[in-house]
Formats: sequence, C-alpha cells, structure tokens
Amino acid sequence: MGGDKAPGEIVQGALQAAEQLGVDVLLVGLPDAVEGHGLPTLTCSEVIGMDEDPGQGVRRKKDSSLVRAAEAVRDGKASAMVSAGNTGATMGAALLRMGRLKGVHRPAIATPIPVPGTTPTILLDAGANAECTAEWLVQFARMGAVMATERFAIDKPRIGLLSIGEEETKGNSLVKEAHLLLRDAGLNFVGNVEGRDILTDEIDVVVTDGFTGNVALKTLEGGIKFIVGKVFEAMMSSDEAKEAAKVLLPALAPVAEDLDPDSHGGAMLLGVDGVCIISHGSSSARAVVNAVRVAKDMVEKDLVDRLRVVVTGAA
Amino acid sequence: MGGDKAPGEIVQGALQAAEQLGVDVLLVGLPDAVEGHGLPTLTCSEVIGMDEDPGQGVRRKKDSSLVRAAEAVRDGKASAMVSAGNTGATMGAALLRMGRLKGVHRPAIATPIPVPGTTPTILLDAGANAECTAEWLVQFARMGAVMATERFAIDKPRIGLLSIGEEETKGNSLVKEAHLLLRDAGLNFVGNVEGRDILTDEIDVVVTDGFTGNVALKTLEGGIKFIVGKVFEAMMSSDEAKEAAKVLLPALAPVAEDLDPDSHGGAMLLGVDGVCIISHGSSSARAVVNAVRVAKDMVEKDLVDRLRVVVTGAA
Repeated sequence: MGGDKAPGEIVQGALQAAEQLGVDVLLVGLPDAVEGHGLPTLTCSEVIGMDEDPGQGVRRKKDSSLVRAAEAVRDGKASAMVSAGNTGATMGAALLRMGRLKGVHRPAIATPIPVPGTTPTILLDAGANAECTAEWLVQFARMGAVMATERFAIDKPRIGLLSIGEEETKGNSLVKEAHLLLRDAGLNFVGNVEGRDILTDEIDVVVTDGFTGNVALKTLEGGIKFIVGKVFEAMMSSDEAKEAAKVLLPALAPVAEDLDPDSHGGAMLLGVDGVCIISHGSSSARAVVNAVRVAKDMVEKDLVDRLRVVVTGAA
Repeated sequence: MGGDKAPGEIVQGALQAAEQLGVDVLLVGLPDAVEGHGLPTLTCSEVIGMDEDPGQGVRRKKDSSLVRAAEAVRDGKASAMVSAGNTGATMGAALLRMGRLKGVHRPAIATPIPVPGTTPTILLDAGANAECTAEWLVQFARMGAVMATERFAIDKPRIGLLSIGEEETKGNSLVKEAHLLLRDAGLNFVGNVEGRDILTDEIDVVVTDGFTGNVALKTLEGGIKFIVGKVFEAMMSSDEAKEAAKVLLPALAPVAEDLDPDSHGGAMLLGVDGVCIISHGSSSARAVVNAVRVAKDMVEKDLVDRLRVVVTGAA
C-alpha cells in the first residue's frame, strides 16, 4: 500500500519479482489492492498514509499493512519485509513487531548511495535517530560494515565519520567523541570524511547521526536532480540539441541508470530482528523487483545473524 | 597570500579589480609577492598556511597577512577585507582584530549558493560554529535576511530552517527550539526546509548550525562536481560526442557559468565590525574581481551598519 505509485506499481513489481527471482512474494494490504493477482496475500483493514505521523500510525492502526507485514516476519510467515511506504512508520512497525536485536542501542537506516563506476557508499544513520550518542555511532559503524560486506561483497569496508574537516579536532562534540571511540573499535576506520567524499571510491561506509545524515542525503539528491534536470533542459532546447543528445546518450545512460534509486533496491533498517528494506516513496515496479532481490539476498546471507554476532560481541 | 593559486591569481585579480571597478586595492602580503605591481601594499613577514590550525595561526602569527588585513580594516586603512586563504584563520583574524558587533552572539559564515535562473540561496552558518544554540540561529536568520536584502536586493527574504522534514515536530532538539523562536521573531520565516530545497526558488535564506551547514555545502558541491564531471566525460568519450557537445554548449554554458563559484564573489563573515569576504580556496583572478566587487558593494550599502541595527534592535 506504500509509495506514490501504490498499489499499481508495487503489485506489478511483486509479480515480476515472483517470476524473475523465483521468490514467494506475500502481498500485504487492503483486499481490493492485493487480491486477484495470483500471489499469496495477507489482508488488512487499515493503511498508514505517507504523511501520517509514524508513531501515532503504528500505535493506533494495529491492522495496517505495515504492522501486519512486520508481524508476518516476526511470526515466520515471511522472511523479510519490503516497503515503499511511510519511512518512519515502516521503522516503527519493524521495531515494535520484530523487535530490536539484543545489544542494539538504536536501529539505523542505512542508505546505499550509488557511486557510478564503483560500489555504493553506505550512509547511516540516514534519518532514524535525529539525536545520537557517540556509542550509537560506533554501533552504526559496526552494522554498516556488516552490510557493506554482505550486500556489496566489500572485504574490509573503509569506514569514515562524517565531519567538517579531516582533522580529528574538527567537528561538533559528538563527532569528536565518536572519532576517539571509532579509532579503538577494531574497525577499518579511516578517519573523518566530508560530504564531498560520499560520491567517491575512497570510502565504503559513512557514519553520522540521523539528522546530519538525512540532511546530507536530501541535499545530495536535490543537487543531483537539479543538475540532471538542467542537462536535460539543454538537451531539449532545440531540434539540433535533441539530435546532439542522441549521440551523447549511450555514454550518459549507464551513469543515469546507476544513479537511479530504482536500480538499487533501497535502504535497510539495521538493528531489528528481521530483514527490512525501505524503498523510496516513488518506487516503480523495477524498484520493487530490486528491493525484493536485495531482501532475498540478505536473507540467504543471514544478514541478521551476522549483525547479531557483531552487536553482541562488541556492544 | 591565500588560496591554492596565490599569489599569482590573487594579485592578477586585484589588478583587474582596481582597473575594472575603480577600487583602490591594498595588497597585503610578503614583500616579494605584493610589491612591484603598481598597487598600494601593506607588507608583512608571516603567512598562515591553508592547512594550519586557525586558532594557533592567528594567535602566534601577529605579523601574518590575514591579521594585518583585518587590522587595516579596524584602523580604517581599508574599507573591507577579501581573502581566499585559510577560512578559519580569516574568521579568527577578523573576529580578533575587527571585533564582533555589539549584541552578536557569534559571527557566522554566510555562503551564497548559486541557483541558476534565480537569486542565490544564502546558507548560514556554513561552518563558523560547529555547535550552536537556538538563539544564535535566530540571530543568523536576522543577519542572513539583511545580507539577502543588501546583496541580492530581495525585499522580504524568505527564511527557512534546515531540518529533516517540514513538520515543526521533526528535527533534533536544536531545530525544534529554533523553530519556535523563529516563528515569533518578526521575520519572514516560512518554516522548516530540507536539503533539496536549497537549489530552488522557494527560499532565500537557509539557517542551520555550522556543522550541518558545512556538511550540506560540501555534500552539494561534491554531488554537483561529480555529475558535471560525468557529463563532461561523456562529452569527451568519442569524436562524435565531442561534436555533439559543441551543439549543447551554448545551452549548458550559462548554467555552468552560474554554478561556478568564481562568478559570485564568495561567502561573508557576518557579525564582525567590518566587511569580510571569504573567497574559496581555489579562487581565480576572476573570483577575486567578483569578491572585490561584492566588498565594494557591501561597503557602499553600509551592510555592517544595517547588521548593527538589526542585531542591537532585537538581540
């Protein structure tokens, strides 16, 4: 039921995922939306809207698709949960119904930021916790490293702490404290990084609090969208320009494809007792297929158990 | 002496500014660098390096170009100061030698972010204060509004508070507190904005703490640079592509020109008792000319006096 294109594109994506990936996709939603597509369903009577207050939504709407989906994972009826809906409510439902892993301070949203030409950079926390302690950031780093290894096959993920200068003396008090803790955490911590390092091959995991992470993510998305829009405008500005654009497209298409969030399968909520994929709000069917692909992959690789070990071993 | 291209480009820029703008430019620096160009000079014996610790640099190097330049403004030998050097040291020198305006909690770096097609968005604080109180943010908003009016002729600047959602309940505790204060500050406060709003015509001044602001700024710069680089790569990928690029350039050039920081004249340190322009570290001669142009304009418009009134009237 979630996302701007629900239920149409979401259901289409589920059908394609079932066919292409051989996964049993359980559709969770209102009967009208999910029934009659030939997929197994779990029906509910409520929906938490995209703009609804997440906390209230999850508490009051116990028969909503998000809460029911999280319960399905908890009860073993589903191996993972995929949602393009209200991010806060997805998080709340997963946290309340699946529960957090033992030893986890706070679950974090880990968003893979595509870097054309190399593996994505994982940014976390991308918005789950507006206020964090240094200890939480260290745990985010541990969880992000596990995700980088399991999802992107990065052997020793390079971890950076988002700050406003490389020197350990720079930053706010949270960053200064986290820097010292990260140095002694037994991780491949490469030090402080800046916003401009996110889109490079220099770093695999960027750790930050959920406020800064969300601001950075949205600023980056806004900036890229702006420039891509301007380039597109220029390409459409005359018949001659349109012809020229056709010549350039073969070189630009792979970059555009790689930057398209639909190509990647979405963010993950790390620290809950189950795989939870958060796809962006304008997810197309293709985005859903890729999200299901990642969900399947993370279940098969026992991501949650690996997180459990890392978190318990060094909480 | 400051910036990656100093002293060559900086001196060239000063010469061009003197000629084109009819401004008396006083060159401050080591004798070898500043003498013999036909401009008045103020020589010194020390330089604070780009990567030097700002606090130590300013305290120890009392005969550095940055400290001497700030003194020249304090002593009335110069009407404004322009630097492409170490940002922290520029700030420190200006603060120590010019002093802060009465009633100013903390000076802030106000960076105009170019938005092709409309006036720039002023982001402040872009890095002067890694940790802020809500009261400081309100004062940043007041000072940013004055700058928007004086520098970009915006009558009633629309002020936004950088957060992670438009709702006033979203954000960290600093943002929540600042939101309430800004609502009652008598400013044209339009509420919380997100990173993606910076590059739009919806907002004139974006207020944030110096940590978040600096992260947002560098993330945006990094993202734009990345995409522009990819487009350029595509344009150079074959002879055919190079030909096609020539057709598109007339449409893309104005956007590139507008996004180029050299076109705009740099950031300003607001809250000190003098005009202080901070140009970026890779400033070309053209950047220096534009920085001097803005300095002249701000002196002529009595920016500092207007800030003084706004800050004293409602501190």
